[in-house]
Formats: sequence, C-alpha cells, structure tokens
Amino acid sequence: MDNNKPIGIFDSGLGGLTCVKEVMKLLPNENIIYFGDTSRVPYGTRSGETIVKYVRQDINFLKTHDIKMIIIACGTASATALDAVRGDYDMEILGVVAPACNEAVKRSKNKKIGILGTLGTINSGKYREHIHEIDGTIEVISQACPMFVPLVENGYSSGEIPTLVARDYLKPLRDAGVDTVILGCTHYPLLTDVIYDVLGRNITLVDAGKSAALNAAERLAQLGLENKSDKPGVVQYFVSDNAPNFSTLGGMFLEREINNNVRKIDIEEY
Amino acid sequence: MDNNKPIGIFDSGLGGLTCVKEVMKLLPNENIIYFGDTSRVPYGTRSGETIVKYVRQDINFLKTHDIKMIIIACGTASATALDAVRGDYDMEILGVVAPACNEAVKRSKNKKIGILGTLGTINSGKYREHIHEIDGTIEVISQACPMFVPLVENGYSSGEIPTLVARDYLKPLRDAGVDTVILGCTHYPLLTDVIYDVLGRNITLVDAGKSAALNAAERLAQLGLENKSDKPGVVQYFVSDNAPNFSTLGGMFLEREINNNVRKIDIEEY
Repeated sequence: MDNNKPIGIFDSGLGGLTCVKEVMKLLPNENIIYFGDTSRVPYGTRSGETIVKYVRQDINFLKTHDIKMIIIACGTASATALDAVRGDYDMEILGVVAPACNEAVKRSKNKKIGILGTLGTINSGKYREHIHEIDGTIEVISQACPMFVPLVENGYSSGEIPTLVARDYLKPLRDAGVDTVILGCTHYPLLTDVIYDVLGRNITLVDAGKSAALNAAERLAQLGLENKSDKPGVVQYFVSDNAPNFSTLGGMFLEREINNNVRKIDIEEY
Repeated sequence: MDNNKPIGIFDSGLGGLTCVKEVMKLLPNENIIYFGDTSRVPYGTRSGETIVKYVRQDINFLKTHDIKMIIIACGTASATALDAVRGDYDMEILGVVAPACNEAVKRSKNKKIGILGTLGTINSGKYREHIHEIDGTIEVISQACPMFVPLVENGYSSGEIPTLVARDYLKPLRDAGVDTVILGCTHYPLLTDVIYDVLGRNITLVDAGKSAALNAAERLAQLGLENKSDKPGVVQYFVSDNAPNFSTLGGMFLEREINNNVRKIDIEEY
C-alpha cells in the first residue's frame, strides 16, 4: 500500500537533518529515506545550472527507494531548482520556499519581511517572488549570509565572532524595521540567539525547514497518504561522502546520534 | 617538441590561481592549462577516499591537453591524494607539501614549525611526516583552520572578525613559540597581515603555493623541459562550474581579470 512507502528527504549536506527532526516529531510513524550530498556540499555558491543537475541526481537516487513524496530540505535547491525539475517527475515534490513564505506573510504585522539565505537562494529571487504573489504590497528585504553556514559548522554558533558577522548581514533588515525574518537555510536556526541579540526578541523568526515539515504533513493528509501504522517509522540515512566532520555535524542537526545506519552511495551514478 | 607542451595546474577551486600567478612570474614563457573544480569545491572537508577520486578525475582531464607536468596547487589534494595517485601516471606530478616543508626546515632557526591547513590536510599528517623525514628533532604544531577559506572568500581578509578567529587558531602556535609557519592552503596568504598581527612580524611565513612554483621551475630545468620560446606563454582556464562568485574570487587570487578565456567542462565525465 502506498501509505507505507517512505518519504524521501534530501539536502546538499547534513543541514536537512533539522527538517528530518521536525518530520519525526510531527509524523512519528512515517518511514524516511534521507540523502545528504556530502561529497558536493555546499550548493549555495554553485550556478543554477549545476544545482539543477545535482538536484535531478538526488531525486533519481531517492526514487530508487519507492518513496511516496519528496521534501527538498535545502533552501538553495528549493529556490533554484524546484520549479525547473518538478514537471519531470510523476510525484509530489515539496520545497521550503512556499511554506516559509506563507507562514511569514501570515505572521508579519507591519508587512516588512526579511529573507536570509545563501548566495544562490537570494540570487534566485524566489522568496521575494512568492511573497509578492501572495501580497504585492509587502516590503521584502533580502540578504545573502554566506558566512553563516561555515560559522555554524565550525562551532561559532554563539559569542562575539558570529555576533559581529550577524551585525553586518542584518543591518539592512534592522534599518528597514522588518518584524518577521525567514531563515531560508537549514543552518540558520542554530544562530537563533545571535539573530535575536542583533534584531531584538520581538522579531518573528520563521524556520523554513520546520514550515516544510508542517506543509508535508498537510499534503500527506490531503492526498490520503499518511502512514496509518502504529509502529514508529524507520529512518535510513544515505550520504555521498563519509566526511570527517560527519558525526559531529549530523548529531548537531538531528539532536541525536546518527553514526549507525548510514550508508555511502556514489551520487554521480544517478 | 615536449618543451612547448603546457604545464597542467589544478586546484579544488580558484585558490590555485595564486600558484598560477607565481608560475607566470617565474616562467613567463610557459603555457599553462588551469583547472578549478568549482562544482565540487571545497576538498578540505571531504574524506580521503573522495578526494583521491576527484584528484584522479582532475588529472585525467588535464592529461587530455597533452601536458608535460602537473602541479597540484591544492594543499588538501597534495596532502591527501598525491602519494596514492602518483604511481598511476607516467608523468611528473608535483604537490605543495614537499617544497613547503623543505623551505620551512631551511628557514626555521629554533626548530619549531607551525602548519596551518584544512581539516583534510591536517588529518593527513603529511606535512609533519615530511618534516620529520628531513629532521626528526623538529617540533611540529599542526592546526586546522576551517574558517580561513570562508573568511577570505567572503571579504573578511582584514579587521576584527578574522583577527578574532586567527587568535583562536594560532594560540597553540604562539604558545609553542614557533618561528616559522607553513601556509598550507591556497587562501591563507591573503590573511598574511592578520597572521602577522597575531604572531608578530618576526615570524617567517612559507607560502606553499609559491614554494610549489619554485620547485616546478627547478624540476623543469633538471628534466630539460623548460619552454625555450621567447613568446609569452598562453594560459587557458577551465572550471567545472560557472559559480556566481567566480570573477570576484578569480580576480582576487590571480590579481588580474580572468573573465575571458574560461571554459566550463563536466568533470564527472573524466
């Protein structure tokens, strides 16, 4: 039965595990196949053409596992490649852009929304586009934050160094007086406290990965595809490289051990 | 005639252009084929197995251009993959590790040498190994500096932020009282002033890419393979992705425009 099939979730690396964590909380009975493209991470600084190629390979790999739905947990891949590839697959493929925009528009009171993302995400203009499709009067301030991922991955999630960098990046959002900010990259929720310190505690932060997990739950219900089993779901992890920082990063994003049950595949074959 | 054949130089990305710049200064009549693996940069956080695979593809691509010698300008690729692949090719392949170690040993007076590199480079232990082959009594202090590449690539080459990060990374070198430091990654020479600020102006910095260029000039002379032409050499640039930050980074490392004359190839085909 289709309901028992797993959900496929992928990301450029391990950051997408934050989305897996949210799906596991919301839908504990769902089986999940996760793929992290750790041999080619990050996607955020690549060209659109290359990201589309990588995303096709990621989807082709997940499809070998007889999945019922795909969630692109990567902000860059969602913003840059989802529109280009969606029509080529006979399957529900969800990204993080639309759910995050819907939530931000719902929650903003002063109609000033900030978007934080990688260079690729911001250059794509997809968040701005989607927000303006909902409400053309909203002021959108977009800011690429290319230092945020390396800061998080190298243990600088709090303290003076990330705060100084965040002050640089968040200045345009602060100056514009946004009341809501979309964290458009898997890693950014780990800088929540730093962002609060710079923008103030009154700001509303929208975690794109969390919005995507909520959206996936809604879509499964609408499609009648929820797993009705009462057993806890099984999560299988696949990566394209056993990077040396793998277990540290994986544990940080998933908030539990992932060392067991991880298999390496050659993504260039898909 | 073999002397007129180009030298092949490759790097995980564009940082290796610092080595190209040095080769052009030393050997202005040599033709050069440069390949930057911009679709899979960085190599510094990948596993040894994946780096070896990528390096083989990089060499296979360069070999299609009828080259006379290869310089691996990437610190991580030199440290992690050179020993594994050297025997498989009937061609002189030079890396950055041996030349940098030779120079550092020659220049250190107190026999205390610091090594800075990516996670992959430091984990490989190759610099330490090579220095101890020359002189087993030298004290070697190794330090991975994973934030240095993103800092340089995102415009933080000077000021408070890189200085704070450098203070963290350089503390063990300072505490040990090293008098010589190997900059074992293409990007690190751009942080020279920051490193001087933290370690003092009396420190001797060895630029691994520059040492590799000098070594290549010596080897060409020893092998009788110098280009005897009196015309300036031609440099051709190849990359695996036209990344959006390409021209900024390329210009920064090469210290001249590289926008023209750059071709994109699919490295996964090699």
